[in-house]
Amino acid sequence: MKLYEFALAPNPRRVRVFLAEKGITVPMVQINLREQEQLKPDFLAINPFATVPVLELDDGRRIAETIAICRYFEATKPEPRLFGHDPYEMGAVEEWQRHCELEGMAAIADGFRNSTPGMKGRAVTGQHGYEQIADLAERGKARATRFFELLDGRLAKHPFVAGDRYSVADITALIAHDFGTRTKVISLDHLANVKRWHEAVSARPSAKA
Amino acid sequence: MKLYEFALAPNPRRVRVFLAEKGITVPMVQINLREQEQLKPDFLAINPFATVPVLELDDGRRIAETIAICRYFEATKPEPRLFGHDPYEMGAVEEWQRHCELEGMAAIADGFRNSTPGMKGRAVTGQHGYEQIADLAERGKARATRFFELLDGRLAKHPFVAGDRYSVADITALIAHDFGTRTKVISLDHLANVKRWHEAVSARPSAKA
Repeated sequence: MKLYEFALAPNPRRVRVFLAEKGITVPMVQINLREQEQLKPDFLAINPFATVPVLELDDGRRIAETIAICRYFEATKPEPRLFGHDPYEMGAVEEWQRHCELEGMAAIADGFRNSTPGMKGRAVTGQHGYEQIADLAERGKARATRFFELLDGRLAKHPFVAGDRYSVADITALIAHDFGTRTKVISLDHLANVKRWHEAVSARPSAKA
Repeated sequence: MKLYEFALAPNPRRVRVFLAEKGITVPMVQINLREQEQLKPDFLAINPFATVPVLELDDGRRIAETIAICRYFEATKPEPRLFGHDPYEMGAVEEWQRHCELEGMAAIADGFRNSTPGMKGRAVTGQHGYEQIADLAERGKARATRFFELLDGRLAKHPFVAGDRYSVADITALIAHDFGTRTKVISLDHLANVKRWHEAVSARPSAKA
């Protein structure tokens, strides 16, 4: 088994934190996104969507997409459960993982990829080059900020994103937070509950992965 | 238990098809999106993201987001399994459900919401009004078309989207297909494998739900 990833990119970090929480070690192969190795024919044969992470099993079958890889490991090593313990919690974790990804992470990526000079002509992941859209960068920034403001209200009532327990939704939110603030797409200093939560999840050993 | 939904919108149809495949009946409450009922205070108290579907349990707890609701029912009534039978298939279904949703459905929604006159000032779901971005409508159309072309190649080798068995990925792809062609965001007549697959999944009784 091996995991194609890139140490500096946000989505592979989601898998690394997930694996650290599970206590699973997987050999890793670096695909250097800065040198556009994901667009070379060798890697496109592995994943036509030209993204990392990709998990390759010993029999050669592969799974792309961060959350799909996490689902695979939740099935092979259920404990500690990171996708919920009962039907309601499984629904709530999925719901909040999605909010954090679609309203948080993806909106930040819109803000970043549509404005950063180095991303010119590559505003969307994948084989095809898409031009940047300045208005979309602004929209992404506004949406991500509003999402974290809403999340701040939720974290006033719950210790973790999906409720009472740490879950994969916290992993997505942590990495959206760090990606968004590091790239300066968003500033979250005014959100006291997000701050308290961020300190707590960042203090877990897995956050270093 | 009840399901807030809207009979004419694509995402609620995903849940209805899923429930039909499972043989589950849930009382439904219509939230008329054409009259913007999702933006009224009563509904925002139910779901601040202002979207349907939302599932409400008998104890008052709620789950929003199409796939989160499907996950809840996969946990309460596992058979027939629509999220995969073993760890690899669970990963593959998640991967392809995501591709169909993010590259298909979301790209079509970008194409539709950013170009249709009736969606002016509401280019993104949710409480906040966002202006349309014409370039994003074009990008969405191009991305969705390229995705279905890639899917056509996959369906030349596999009967269903995630592999050998019908799954929730087929439900997302079916409804993305119908939403995209009905709104004329995409035209898929040139894709023979997509056509064969679409006829097969549309012939299932669940497709009428």
